[in-house]
Amino acid sequence: MSYPQEMRSRPVHPNSESEQSEQALLRYIRGRAGQTSLGSLRLGIGDDCALLRPRRGEELAVTTDLSIAGRHFRLDWHSPESIGHRVLARGLSDLAAMGARPVAAFLSLGLPRELTAASGRKPAWIQRFLDGQFALAAAHKTPLAGGDLSESLIPIADIVLIGAVSRGKALLRSNARPGHLLYVTGTLGGAAAALARIEELASSHSGSKPPRITKNLEAQLAPHLYPQPRISQGLWLVRHGLASAAIDLSDGLSIDLAHLCEESGVAAEVNAALLPIHAAATLEQALNGGEDYELLFTAPPTASLPRKIVGIPVTLIGRILPRRSGRPALTLLTPHGREPLNPKGWQHFA
Amino acid sequence: MSYPQEMRSRPVHPNSESEQSEQALLRYIRGRAGQTSLGSLRLGIGDDCALLRPRRGEELAVTTDLSIAGRHFRLDWHSPESIGHRVLARGLSDLAAMGARPVAAFLSLGLPRELTAASGRKPAWIQRFLDGQFALAAAHKTPLAGGDLSESLIPIADIVLIGAVSRGKALLRSNARPGHLLYVTGTLGGAAAALARIEELASSHSGSKPPRITKNLEAQLAPHLYPQPRISQGLWLVRHGLASAAIDLSDGLSIDLAHLCEESGVAAEVNAALLPIHAAATLEQALNGGEDYELLFTAPPTASLPRKIVGIPVTLIGRILPRRSGRPALTLLTPHGREPLNPKGWQHFA
Repeated sequence: MSYPQEMRSRPVHPNSESEQSEQALLRYIRGRAGQTSLGSLRLGIGDDCALLRPRRGEELAVTTDLSIAGRHFRLDWHSPESIGHRVLARGLSDLAAMGARPVAAFLSLGLPRELTAASGRKPAWIQRFLDGQFALAAAHKTPLAGGDLSESLIPIADIVLIGAVSRGKALLRSNARPGHLLYVTGTLGGAAAALARIEELASSHSGSKPPRITKNLEAQLAPHLYPQPRISQGLWLVRHGLASAAIDLSDGLSIDLAHLCEESGVAAEVNAALLPIHAAATLEQALNGGEDYELLFTAPPTASLPRKIVGIPVTLIGRILPRRSGRPALTLLTPHGREPLNPKGWQHFA
Repeated sequence: MSYPQEMRSRPVHPNSESEQSEQALLRYIRGRAGQTSLGSLRLGIGDDCALLRPRRGEELAVTTDLSIAGRHFRLDWHSPESIGHRVLARGLSDLAAMGARPVAAFLSLGLPRELTAASGRKPAWIQRFLDGQFALAAAHKTPLAGGDLSESLIPIADIVLIGAVSRGKALLRSNARPGHLLYVTGTLGGAAAALARIEELASSHSGSKPPRITKNLEAQLAPHLYPQPRISQGLWLVRHGLASAAIDLSDGLSIDLAHLCEESGVAAEVNAALLPIHAAATLEQALNGGEDYELLFTAPPTASLPRKIVGIPVTLIGRILPRRSGRPALTLLTPHGREPLNPKGWQHFA
């Protein structure tokens, strides 16, 4: 049963060349999508809707993330594989932050015609995009259950992720309490440091030519080009019932911690000396750089956290405090004393 | 509990004017979204994911529809309210075709900055867009559970609808069998006729100025501007167990019937004399015009269909035949005899 939800485009003249190539593209996507296992997905691409059947005692987590060329990725900087990976990683990371198991993905793509056409023997841009996306999807057993495809002057990709989690067990942003300790998975600032390196390469290339990113360089830039959503770590936290609240680090530690504190009605203190800063990154990048896609979570002081969760280090970085009016919600403890930690923004390619 | 899924944008400088107005916009959306009832939606805007808790014995139907300016709507032809309505109607219609009850909507919006800013006392474009969308959402008890918001040079809106249906009871495209009869709700071609009228008005306006669509004219053009998804009729069909297969008429009768026949492995014959053609429409528009969003469904000949379902007429228009190789899948019976019915495409604003 490898049907499911309609993946269609607006047909024009069914026998025209462009229509035929669109139909071929849809068959290609459907064929690729069918290769992954279905699990809770009962009906996939091919009908008006996909059908999902959650297991008994589970509820479903849903998240959507819109990526737009020039804002979330650049065609001249990112390989199609990296863009496909990054689009899916954003959605999977939201599931990870709830401790949900991926059940299905839906992809809406708006692309200029030239990105959907193969030229000679070289695969079309969209095929390489899907290669990148399906590789990450396979790693997290996430079938593509549907979506939509349309022509668009500016490339856009909207990803929808649906996950499953035991009823009442999802990790929320709103359950952090004063006295709880603050933890983070992995390292911080690596994605921002890699992005800064890409910007540097681009500006040294005199504008006319895009920077060439070799395979070797790509490995160094992996924290930005191929971020790893912490699905296994989120599942582990739910299974062991240790975390009180969680959020994924998509916008940056300072902003995402501010979100968590706001939803929980608490304040937080971060100890700069404890931060697991990525080897290539600065403190500033660790605090305010986005897209690390690590998990930031809280746990009661009685909880005994291991040093690693499914192979990824876990680091204590601070604690939750009561919120007091007139005091900053976030403070940073440094060798020079205590200072307000202002949630600093992050934009990709302004 | 009127939380739900993260509706966020990429923050830039948290204290900048644009960031403040974006935050205000998100609060506005969250406030408006919270006004509708939640039902199976346990957690809405405000966390990494929304949480849905299907009732026992239900499965979930999921559909996504991408709308792009210049392709699915035009800023100079459609009012913001109409665009908001149409975006949601596309998704609801897919749920209707499965016989599913709406549970939650997710909206990803990419908009140029000028469409999100209010100018003086006039509401911003996005507010009027949401007015149109929330009005239709309220009519079908569909809470907005989350989404994403980003700046985009070209306006785009991706809508995700999640519905619930009793396990194994969803109306599929794939269960039509030879001998079954073919029915359609409402009238056909009205949306295409209204669109043709808009195009006529636009071309008579010498290009420089957009056509003024008055309230009076808007009522005439309602089949295109405010199509009504047949949610109640789909639910009725599931409840009474009369339909064997169903699809919604989004691309046009000839194309959508071809999809249904392909998924069921059958052929079909349509009787032109039986078609409920909209008063303003031609046979051509009834056969090949898109966006009527009526339901096309099949039922065994033993099924006794009423003349109306929840106030909407139901018309017998043909029958399902065995598929024979070398014969056209679709035939049209006319006063002049039998002819092949070619699935003809439909594009909005090519």
